[in-house]
Amino acid sequence: MPYWKIYSPEGTYTKEDKQAMSTAITDIYVEFAELPRFYVVVLFEDRPADTIWVGGEPANHFVRIVVDHIARQVDTPELRLMTMEAVEAAIEPFVKDRGLDWEVHIDETPFDLWRTQGMTPPPPESEAERLWAAENRAVPWEHPERPSA
Amino acid sequence: MPYWKIYSPEGTYTKEDKQAMSTAITDIYVEFAELPRFYVVVLFEDRPADTIWVGGEPANHFVRIVVDHIARQVDTPELRLMTMEAVEAAIEPFVKDRGLDWEVHIDETPFDLWRTQGMTPPPPESEAERLWAAENRAVPWEHPERPSA
Amino acid sequence: MPYWKIYSPEGTYTKEDKQAMSTAITDIYVEFAELPRFYVVVLFEDRPADTIWVGGEPANHFVRIVVDHIARQVDTPELRLMTMEAVEAAIEPFVKDRGLDWEVHIDETPFDLWRTQGMTPPPPESEAERLWAAENRAVPWEHPERPSA
Repeated sequence: MPYWKIYSPEGTYTKEDKQAMSTAITDIYVEFAELPRFYVVVLFEDRPADTIWVGGEPANHFVRIVVDHIARQVDTPELRLMTMEAVEAAIEPFVKDRGLDWEVHIDETPFDLWRTQGMTPPPPESEAERLWAAENRAVPWEHPERPSA
Repeated sequence: MPYWKIYSPEGTYTKEDKQAMSTAITDIYVEFAELPRFYVVVLFEDRPADTIWVGGEPANHFVRIVVDHIARQVDTPELRLMTMEAVEAAIEPFVKDRGLDWEVHIDETPFDLWRTQGMTPPPPESEAERLWAAENRAVPWEHPERPSA
Repeated sequence: MPYWKIYSPEGTYTKEDKQAMSTAITDIYVEFAELPRFYVVVLFEDRPADTIWVGGEPANHFVRIVVDHIARQVDTPELRLMTMEAVEAAIEPFVKDRGLDWEVHIDETPFDLWRTQGMTPPPPESEAERLWAAENRAVPWEHPERPSA
């Protein structure tokens, strides 16, 4: 679940940057929602010059971040604000602090149209989810409404 | 409509694999919903090493599949479960059976914000949709609420 | 906000085409909704042969356009129809008039899960949004419900 795509001009981020950035992003979800670390997927999209355009002009110092949230819906305005503040805090060293322009938006997609390793992920804050978090992998579990997950 | 993106480590799939995989995916929608074959679009995104990160670690044996559903909304929990089972069955030979890790999620987007070949697609299970399926292409049709589609 | 991705076979569009196409797309939002020009982000995804498949066959003359709308939700059927007509009119010279196949769909994502330059964008048609449009950049503004935006 959280599924991040980071579009940046080619050469913006080294492998070390990518490790640090994906770790900072992962930490948000582990700290705030106790999600399993392996739920957090980050794709880095290094783009050649002149493939990102803003307002009809080439944007070669611009990082565009697009996120899908699946495992958790953030229900209240306060939590949604906190979410965005946590996101901005995590990415700030990699965008603002480097003098880059940036923009981020999150979509929310249905929990029940999601599978990992072929399995239905356990419900939020369930015993099974805690096990997945502790083992940091998808473990077969008993789905209450079906013979097997 | 169904619009699939398959992110995999570079070299995971040959052209033959891509043909087989996109055919298996297409068959889901033709068999279950009688959609026109050409509705099913699959983009293969071959990613260089160290561009996909899971939980802050490089994931070089991981396939991430992201799908948008447009032409059909799946309304009941039973149908949503069947959808995910059909999806998993179609992809299993290309992920699980090859020892790869994988994750898939589907979003649902609005029917009326979609066009193909500049045309408004016909309503689900209409005569016009059957014609599109039979001819496997977008054919001009009479939209009941407007002079022409 | 509007966030466009244009997947096309490698070599379909020159840099000049990309400038013209992203300008035509930007103009839609400026003319219809008076959005700031810099809100309109267009990513060109030049795809190698045999990476786009339609109905199980390679589609090497096919342009797939995927859009996220964030800053504005289009609420009535009439406005949604107008939106799609404006979109098609903007892209027609780059797809239909070149003998290419094409398909486009738009998703709508939540306004409050969006930031640009770390700032909460001002509400639609507010004074602050007009300032952002006039200056064509994100300017700090006073959010009515919070100490600072």
